[in-house]
Amino acid sequence: MTDKKTALVISAHAADFVWRAGGAIALHQKRGYDVTVVCLSYGERGESAKLWKQSGMTLDVVKKARRTEAENAARALDVHDIQFFDLGDYPLDFTAETRDRLVDVIRAVQPRFMMSHSMWDPYNTDHMNTTKFVLECRMIAQAWGHNPGQKVLGAPQLYLFEPHQTEQMQWKPDVFLDITEVWDKKRAAIECMEGQEHLWNFYTNVAENRGNHFRRNSGGQSGGRDARYAEGFQSVFPRTVDEL
Amino acid sequence: MTDKKTALVISAHAADFVWRAGGAIALHQKRGYDVTVVCLSYGERGESAKLWKQSGMTLDVVKKARRTEAENAARALDVHDIQFFDLGDYPLDFTAETRDRLVDVIRAVQPRFMMSHSMWDPYNTDHMNTTKFVLECRMIAQAWGHNPGQKVLGAPQLYLFEPHQTEQMQWKPDVFLDITEVWDKKRAAIECMEGQEHLWNFYTNVAENRGNHFRRNSGGQSGGRDARYAEGFQSVFPRTVDEL
Amino acid sequence: MTDKKTALVISAHAADFVWRAGGAIALHQKRGYDVTVVCLSYGERGESAKLWKQSGMTLDVVKKARRTEAENAARALDVHDIQFFDLGDYPLDFTAETRDRLVDVIRAVQPRFMMSHSMWDPYNTDHMNTTKFVLECRMIAQAWGHNPGQKVLGAPQLYLFEPHQTEQMQWKPDVFLDITEVWDKKRAAIECMEGQEHLWNFYTNVAENRGNHFRRNSGGQSGGRDARYAEGFQSVFPRTVDEL
Amino acid sequence: MTDKKTALVISAHAADFVWRAGGAIALHQKRGYDVTVVCLSYGERGESAKLWKQSGMTLDVVKKARRTEAENAARALDVHDIQFFDLGDYPLDFTAETRDRLVDVIRAVQPRFMMSHSMWDPYNTDHMNTTKFVLECRMIAQAWGHNPGQKVLGAPQLYLFEPHQTEQMQWKPDVFLDITEVWDKKRAAIECMEGQEHLWNFYTNVAENRGNHFRRNSGGQSGGRDARYAEGFQSVFPRTVDEL
Amino acid sequence: MTDKKTALVISAHAADFVWRAGGAIALHQKRGYDVTVVCLSYGERGESAKLWKQSGMTLDVVKKARRTEAENAARALDVHDIQFFDLGDYPLDFTAETRDRLVDVIRAVQPRFMMSHSMWDPYNTDHMNTTKFVLECRMIAQAWGHNPGQKVLGAPQLYLFEPHQTEQMQWKPDVFLDITEVWDKKRAAIECMEGQEHLWNFYTNVAENRGNHFRRNSGGQSGGRDARYAEGFQSVFPRTVDEL
Amino acid sequence: MTDKKTALVISAHAADFVWRAGGAIALHQKRGYDVTVVCLSYGERGESAKLWKQSGMTLDVVKKARRTEAENAARALDVHDIQFFDLGDYPLDFTAETRDRLVDVIRAVQPRFMMSHSMWDPYNTDHMNTTKFVLECRMIAQAWGHNPGQKVLGAPQLYLFEPHQTEQMQWKPDVFLDITEVWDKKRAAIECMEGQEHLWNFYTNVAENRGNHFRRNSGGQSGGRDARYAEGFQSVFPRTVDEL
Repeated sequence: MTDKKTALVISAHAADFVWRAGGAIALHQKRGYDVTVVCLSYGERGESAKLWKQSGMTLDVVKKARRTEAENAARALDVHDIQFFDLGDYPLDFTAETRDRLVDVIRAVQPRFMMSHSMWDPYNTDHMNTTKFVLECRMIAQAWGHNPGQKVLGAPQLYLFEPHQTEQMQWKPDVFLDITEVWDKKRAAIECMEGQEHLWNFYTNVAENRGNHFRRNSGGQSGGRDARYAEGFQSVFPRTVDEL
Repeated sequence: MTDKKTALVISAHAADFVWRAGGAIALHQKRGYDVTVVCLSYGERGESAKLWKQSGMTLDVVKKARRTEAENAARALDVHDIQFFDLGDYPLDFTAETRDRLVDVIRAVQPRFMMSHSMWDPYNTDHMNTTKFVLECRMIAQAWGHNPGQKVLGAPQLYLFEPHQTEQMQWKPDVFLDITEVWDKKRAAIECMEGQEHLWNFYTNVAENRGNHFRRNSGGQSGGRDARYAEGFQSVFPRTVDEL
Repeated sequence: MTDKKTALVISAHAADFVWRAGGAIALHQKRGYDVTVVCLSYGERGESAKLWKQSGMTLDVVKKARRTEAENAARALDVHDIQFFDLGDYPLDFTAETRDRLVDVIRAVQPRFMMSHSMWDPYNTDHMNTTKFVLECRMIAQAWGHNPGQKVLGAPQLYLFEPHQTEQMQWKPDVFLDITEVWDKKRAAIECMEGQEHLWNFYTNVAENRGNHFRRNSGGQSGGRDARYAEGFQSVFPRTVDEL
Repeated sequence: MTDKKTALVISAHAADFVWRAGGAIALHQKRGYDVTVVCLSYGERGESAKLWKQSGMTLDVVKKARRTEAENAARALDVHDIQFFDLGDYPLDFTAETRDRLVDVIRAVQPRFMMSHSMWDPYNTDHMNTTKFVLECRMIAQAWGHNPGQKVLGAPQLYLFEPHQTEQMQWKPDVFLDITEVWDKKRAAIECMEGQEHLWNFYTNVAENRGNHFRRNSGGQSGGRDARYAEGFQSVFPRTVDEL
Repeated sequence: MTDKKTALVISAHAADFVWRAGGAIALHQKRGYDVTVVCLSYGERGESAKLWKQSGMTLDVVKKARRTEAENAARALDVHDIQFFDLGDYPLDFTAETRDRLVDVIRAVQPRFMMSHSMWDPYNTDHMNTTKFVLECRMIAQAWGHNPGQKVLGAPQLYLFEPHQTEQMQWKPDVFLDITEVWDKKRAAIECMEGQEHLWNFYTNVAENRGNHFRRNSGGQSGGRDARYAEGFQSVFPRTVDEL
Repeated sequence: MTDKKTALVISAHAADFVWRAGGAIALHQKRGYDVTVVCLSYGERGESAKLWKQSGMTLDVVKKARRTEAENAARALDVHDIQFFDLGDYPLDFTAETRDRLVDVIRAVQPRFMMSHSMWDPYNTDHMNTTKFVLECRMIAQAWGHNPGQKVLGAPQLYLFEPHQTEQMQWKPDVFLDITEVWDKKRAAIECMEGQEHLWNFYTNVAENRGNHFRRNSGGQSGGRDARYAEGFQSVFPRTVDEL
């Protein structure tokens, strides 16, 4: 693991990192991390209904608009680096080349932790396929015989960020992160997603209610921290500690 | 939560805290915690086969012997306080009075974290009944209307320590604790359990192999810490953090 | 099953039926159902922190205050009948007499459906114990040999209403109910719970976000109904239908 | 969603729709639905043992025989339309072209509900791969940017029909459909599957016993409907309703 | 373990052992086992609807009738010994005395294997409570300090026999037993249950279809045994073997 | 099924069969089985860190070294036949040709049982992909229309051997095999894996502790067999038996 504190967020579509991990990104940037975001696609076909309802719309125009939104949101969150793989969405098309490309990014970043989608999503197979793909790439990045000479990956945690309908996705958060101090940044990033205004209030509610969960789990009415906004994550791997 | 760092371990039978959490106890004592152990029974009927095979054995003699062993082990681990509830084992007999008694202990200790058994154990219903009982007592200790005036409990984590056959108990560790620096104390405590010598090597193997798991999850061959002994725990509640 | 449309909601503590099923209650009253609510306790010890923080508070005063709140909320929801079993909370004390009493209520009401808590709740064992108790009483109410001569219960669905932290409770909704037309009643009932003002906004957010889930599952941006508020429920038993 | 009531059944092999959903098909046809069946393969290699035991058998002869059986069964069930994708079986070969083809069918049919196999089947990976494929195609059919101009899909339920050994497939029915009034049609369709006569009695038993489950869940001996034959289904998505 | 081959079946209500394990009982008797059956109740209140529908019925008459049926069935199955604990049903009333009584039976029988109900049954809490009770008694029977001097129990398998609606009970069979050679005995025993004639055909269908599962898992169309009737069981504990 | 007793072990990487099934292999050879091992890869990239840390290392040298180790281990275990598919690892590259090749091996061997990896492994997707691939090939080998004329496969059990961190892999053993009499062979095979010396003690500990589990489940202190070394396996399919 490098001395530089780094993190890597892999987002199936352009907007996912905003709704689901925007607070974590802004907060860790503030804590001195360099956070890299990889968007595998722009969500151009599946998550751009508002644009497609305009007459004469083309794939290129949608992709450009979505990219701009994502870049604006990344800026609002102080993202260190954002990369667009442009794989096409609905479905994402994973190839051996894409695999090598993501492994290269992982090894270059040497993240202390990684983030991606829930393991299961019957509404959106792109999401769960992304996570399976990320696990495969993490494994390859750890292989001493893959591109010998490159710095081999350690064992960063993979956090699964919050999906849309948590209970349907078999997603269970085991850690809540207080994002109160960067909430303004997250809200600003959310408002960059002009094509999905119907979700602004939804994810504000989520942040408020996760704040309630944070308070409850940090002591409730007997000493709980007054977090007002939070994000939840599910860990894939066990932690290793010196003190519980 | 009090400023004093404290922890509370609830053990169904006299020896459970040794095999399953001895390292965590000794380590947190060393880190400045006061660790209290409650043994609900001596395991006098169900976990003292070696004694019962001696002719003329009586329940009192078994209980005394088991208590002495547990006290010796506690001393080896630098336990701050050990309490014996003497409920009788196989099965444990939980009453309303016992419930109040454990709630009093919880409120007196004000633990930063608690520990007990796995949620499921078809071999030993005492174990799983203990955990359900502990959850109930934790809830009561949080109630402002229970013995008003007492200091109300916050929201300490409940860690489930390692059961005998982990896979049969639906137990999955999500945190590994490096106990290398206190291994000698744990081994000494283990050797206090004279009636269960057949388990000494078993739990030494467990500690070594959990050390391997610690190394694997802390970076493996690319920077993993060289932990030689570890213990694993399953968390019941989500964590609340400021940084992932 | 009687010709009269009826439903029965069993609530561990006085306020549970408001947060978790207030919309369903008001809506079914409007649809011509008689909805009966049973509160097993007032939540006097465990869910009345605000009152207990006042000096000189007594159990009786708390119970009276909580009862008044619950009655007001019931009125706001047009509840047909509300009954208080006053079992004491944290923990609820289930006896054979209580069992017979609830069976009598079930048989008297002959509900088309019943509602209660999630099956699992490590934060609050009262909740999960209530559901286990309800399943037992439902079984007894179906027994021809229990109080022969009484009208025997059919096979009403048992819906589990939404717990506080859904993912920690292993709760998964399989049906969303549009409560938009009675939202004002639910909000009014929520505001009756003066001792838990910290939850008003929380459950308003829940209702809004379940509205989003309703829209998504009823067709999304291609024909989904514009529900603004909804409640989710998990069914215990299979449905029996003539058309899918 | 179109005004026309429609449904779509996707069957991995030629006979699956008969054993598993024949009653639902005939019943919904009778209720005014247009039910389309897609057979991804003829089950020519894996589910035609009886034919292959004849000497001199060829793949073409088997496919033709299986197709004829399936068409006869479809006729017996009043199927509106049956399509054969002829992908080859054991294993099914899913390509990008097949995906587009199924998406086209889904969009053309605009089904109120869809049906396919259980999520898990260690005996027959074709079955579970089909369901994953169906989920992917359902997602694509909902994407406004996929073939813009086509009518976009809403959010139809996906029902998983009954697999062969239900408990091994992690399949749990949450709805039972009374098929008594069309049982004769289902039995006639079953008898069209001449190559699998060893299953006729098996699926008749299933229908009778699901009838028993229907009776039990609709009220048992206190008002349960006297359904004699039924089929069970597992829903993937939550329902959205106005009344429970 | 004794040299005598023995088995012990614990049945919540009088008829359960017939429907669910009648074949296993008759077969093992034929194989030289002494099979003991314990009926915790007669199912007098909850499973005797047909009798209660007669006018003037009393609890005593129902119990006598149910006992006679169970004894007749036991005779048809060549049961070695049948014991009635008469605890009352709906719900079963488990006391410390009952526990000791069952432990005594277990130790007297020294079974090579035990049988009881599924772990989960939301329709009938007597069933799942029985299994939890059996696990507790098995544990006590293994305790050297419980009634020292008695022969201590080894580690017999606990098989969970088939519940009524398997998928709703989270029951998954891992072993199928060919009962073809004793089917006539099981059918004769079934016909002894005069009050539940509506279940005769149901459990005959179950036996036939489990026969199909036996054939499928023993080799299918490539060498599977031609079992015509079978029963399925779920094992609680791992097996210990010398050859796979 | 052939009269010859045979078994087939499919190992993702060269060493897996040694750590996870070495005892079962040696024991069944001793019992008269012909055990065939297929290594899909040499683990050349992902499981050969020690070699890659040497300067000037090449893929060919690593593969040769790993092959030699595996052949030596196979010899130590008396393996009947070992085949190397050389698919490349991290990730394994499964093609239609590979599928046909494995099906041919399965049909040629006609195994009484098969062995492979756990169903889930977030650390190593090669492992879980192998098992899914094995299930697919088993299905094809059973198809009468696949290469008609070849001997069709029956229904051999698929055992999942022990993964590295069992609890993280959702692996639960349901059978323990006493390997005491061949432990020397397994230890000798383990010592052939010179590149992974850090695992020798780990898997010796595993074998000792599984011996403890064997003793516990075969009767414990009341008649349990004194197995000193054991291996655990999880069965995918139900067993079919004549006696429990």
